[in-house]
Amino acid sequence: MGCNMKKQKISDAVIHRLPRYYRHLNDLYNRGVVRISSSSLGAKMDITASQIRQDLSCFGEFGQQGYGYNVEELRAEIGHILGIDKGHRLIIVGAGHLGHALLQNFDFGRAGFQVDTAFDISPALIGTTIRGVTIRSMDELEDYVAAYHPDVAVLTVPQNEAQPLANKLIAMGIRGFWNFTNVELSTSVPGVFFEDIHFVDTLLTLSYRISRS
Amino acid sequence: MGCNMKKQKISDAVIHRLPRYYRHLNDLYNRGVVRISSSSLGAKMDITASQIRQDLSCFGEFGQQGYGYNVEELRAEIGHILGIDKGHRLIIVGAGHLGHALLQNFDFGRAGFQVDTAFDISPALIGTTIRGVTIRSMDELEDYVAAYHPDVAVLTVPQNEAQPLANKLIAMGIRGFWNFTNVELSTSVPGVFFEDIHFVDTLLTLSYRISRS
Repeated sequence: MGCNMKKQKISDAVIHRLPRYYRHLNDLYNRGVVRISSSSLGAKMDITASQIRQDLSCFGEFGQQGYGYNVEELRAEIGHILGIDKGHRLIIVGAGHLGHALLQNFDFGRAGFQVDTAFDISPALIGTTIRGVTIRSMDELEDYVAAYHPDVAVLTVPQNEAQPLANKLIAMGIRGFWNFTNVELSTSVPGVFFEDIHFVDTLLTLSYRISRS
Repeated sequence: MGCNMKKQKISDAVIHRLPRYYRHLNDLYNRGVVRISSSSLGAKMDITASQIRQDLSCFGEFGQQGYGYNVEELRAEIGHILGIDKGHRLIIVGAGHLGHALLQNFDFGRAGFQVDTAFDISPALIGTTIRGVTIRSMDELEDYVAAYHPDVAVLTVPQNEAQPLANKLIAMGIRGFWNFTNVELSTSVPGVFFEDIHFVDTLLTLSYRISRS
């Protein structure tokens, strides 16, 4: 469950911990904390200090014996590894309640993303704006993507539309999907990434924990 | 990263894989698949066959050499371990766009939960119903919880209300929180569980993957 420097192969477990590191370091940074030991960071994140040292060793040399980590520096380094400074742009496809909730409440900028625009089929929504983001007609989707090449599409559409829509967007060149449809998407096109939000998993984990207590 | 039968201590990594097992087995079951080998299930879930055997060994004896797993049986067993058959009940606190989206689209029954009711402060929402669930005034929250003892509260309220509301609900006896507020909640009360939905983590994972490709 670590990295292998020689092969440059970083395990999914490490990749999934990186955003947690970033989130906790961001929190420390915003609270004005200047440095933190691996054991304090571990206690905060509920993992061991040695796990932290092993994870970070995948990406280079961080921290200093007896000093710990400089919060601002490590935050910036992990942010860089995560691609927060790449200027990624995204579109939201589906501006129903969930799309609306994301537009209204979610801080995309915190993850380094700019929301270009959103699309929906509802005439009542088309032309309106939510926090400065304009909702366009789905009829404009193809032309928009061809003209502006966004990196990521957020899918907040009904289940039966998910895979056909993803296929269409992949054909248009979209390479990343933040998928809220509860459909397990797939493609044979290489270099396309899906991050599925499986709400049910965390509710089942909660069910497990309250069942055992 | 496994279990220790003697200590009955099951690692968080295993606990977090259980819902994924359940989700994939459920999918196989719904497609009429009767049995599956650990290697086929592993290929589907992108983990090794030996990891699957090790994970499941935490909970008992499953599968049969040369036959694999009976999908219906394993699904039922894992569902039981997850507490899906416990008849858990929940309330939704906050029926804005996100609460509304969950009420409208999320299949709580699939995780073994019944949605009792929802609460909001908006006069426009109070008294309305979404998929058969009535939205009540926040003023009724305390009396409702005292009378009906729901197991879990889904928190879909603004950030600044999250911790005070959680404190109040914990004092009323709620032991599980499905937390969508992006606030890291805590309590000194033992036996209380929080499952935080950190949307940003998966978006950052996606950012990482598209940055490296």
